[in-house]
Amino acid sequence: MSETKRSEDNVIYVGNKPIMNYVLAAVTQFNDGVNEVAIKARGRAISRAVDTAEVVRNRFMTDVQVKAIQIGTEKLEGEKGETINVSSIEIFLNRPS
Amino acid sequence: MSETKRSEDNVIYVGNKPIMNYVLAAVTQFNDGVNEVAIKARGRAISRAVDTAEVVRNRFMTDVQVKAIQIGTEKLEGEKGETINVSSIEIFLNRPS
Repeated sequence: MSETKRSEDNVIYVGNKPIMNYVLAAVTQFNDGVNEVAIKARGRAISRAVDTAEVVRNRFMTDVQVKAIQIGTEKLEGEKGETINVSSIEIFLNRPS
Repeated sequence: MSETKRSEDNVIYVGNKPIMNYVLAAVTQFNDGVNEVAIKARGRAISRAVDTAEVVRNRFMTDVQVKAIQIGTEKLEGEKGETINVSSIEIFLNRPS
């Protein structure tokens, strides 16, 4: 039960839940003293990840900045063993300490 | 009918059409000699904009790089005059000349 904040922990995976779930997860992490939160999503959830980042910094924490955004392609295995390419996004939010 | 390539022209607005429409639009611009293409989208089309960028650089033009990505919020007017916030993305693709 270490209290050390590791950067691997500060990742929020955005899926199909309401956006506010992910917004509150990010806000909670920042309030716990984390300086950087990564918001990740794949496929159709990508637009929801952008919504999450925008709501966090426009409505809840106006000092939070978008530090970097990366996009990529992940290869998933389909039901028949075929390879499916899915786009992904990582939005790195930073809060000046 | 000037042949000058203005940067304002190199914008592709991604909507609800098949992704390949936007991919071909981007590839065509690069083949016309443009060095930078901006892919823009709002709302749910954001994930499609990421797909477009990924397909262009993974399948068609492997020398194309993601130069920058910006996200934002645009205010639209709803049917009843109310303000609707919509997330947006701009993906700037660069092809080294």
